[in-house]
Amino acid sequence: MKLYTAKGTPNGRRVEIFLAEKHVDLPSVQVDLRGGENITPEFRRMNPMGRIPVLEMEDGSFISESVAICRYFESLHPEPCLFGRGAEQQAIIEMWGRRAELNFLLNAATAFRNLTGFFKDRETINKDWGQTSLEVAQNALPIFDAHLASAMYLAGDEFSIADITFGAGLDFTQAVKLDLPFDLVNLVSYRARLAERPSFQN
Amino acid sequence: MKLYTAKGTPNGRRVEIFLAEKHVDLPSVQVDLRGGENITPEFRRMNPMGRIPVLEMEDGSFISESVAICRYFESLHPEPCLFGRGAEQQAIIEMWGRRAELNFLLNAATAFRNLTGFFKDRETINKDWGQTSLEVAQNALPIFDAHLASAMYLAGDEFSIADITFGAGLDFTQAVKLDLPFDLVNLVSYRARLAERPSFQN
Repeated sequence: MKLYTAKGTPNGRRVEIFLAEKHVDLPSVQVDLRGGENITPEFRRMNPMGRIPVLEMEDGSFISESVAICRYFESLHPEPCLFGRGAEQQAIIEMWGRRAELNFLLNAATAFRNLTGFFKDRETINKDWGQTSLEVAQNALPIFDAHLASAMYLAGDEFSIADITFGAGLDFTQAVKLDLPFDLVNLVSYRARLAERPSFQN
Repeated sequence: MKLYTAKGTPNGRRVEIFLAEKHVDLPSVQVDLRGGENITPEFRRMNPMGRIPVLEMEDGSFISESVAICRYFESLHPEPCLFGRGAEQQAIIEMWGRRAELNFLLNAATAFRNLTGFFKDRETINKDWGQTSLEVAQNALPIFDAHLASAMYLAGDEFSIADITFGAGLDFTQAVKLDLPFDLVNLVSYRARLAERPSFQN
């Protein structure tokens, strides 16, 4: 198997962290997003949506979408368990993973793309919408902070894929200097806990 | 258990269809989105994100996010299987479910909100971004159509939760008259297949 990915992207890093937690070492190919390698016809044969990461399987087929790739490795390597055990815990992890992605990461990424024009060679940029998306992401963080006042990790006492999505999102948006309230007290402790994990140290 | 939901919304309908496929009958409470019932402090105690659907559990806790609620019922009622069996099929369903949601449904919903101003009493509206989102959703449909030339359902021969996300998204965006290429030939056959299912007939 082989992973097509790109350093410095939140979705690439989500899969990287997940594989490190599972102690799975996979050959990878860096895709040049800035140069548009992900939107070439060759790449779209692997993923018609033109996005990384993409997993090339042994039989030559492809799985894309970060969470789909992670779920595949969760089945192959069930320990440590990152998607939860039992109906309720699995649902809670899914809920927090989606909240982290839909309420925070996607809005922050939309803000980044529209405020910086990073992909302005290939997509319509709208600075006002970048600002609106930034505000939506800003407003989401205190909700996570309040939740983390009584929870070690998003889904409770156990680290899960929801924390990978949220932690990779937070690290990325801070790296690109988005104006987000990173200094919320519970969020600061939570990020320190994540940063101690070897999987986050790359 | 009790479901807080809203008729006519794509996310409410996703859970409705899923429960109908599972033959699960659940008491439900209609939430008045137009009147802002979902953003009251009372509702936010159930889901701080202020979104439907929300499942109230027997112990008084709450699960939100459509896919998290569906996953919970998949565990309680494994048949018919809608999240797939085995590592690869589960990953393929996750991939197509996310493509349907992230590439189509979310962009179409953003177009709807910004072009119509449906929630303009509570969120910033940006018509240009509505138009951009519509174009992104328009450009995604031919990719699904091409895939459906050789697949009965998004993830292959078997109906899955990915089809619920995509089908509910298509039905909603056609109901609100978004300018999308609904007439693509494989998409038309696919929608006819979905429409025959009793779960889609509501």
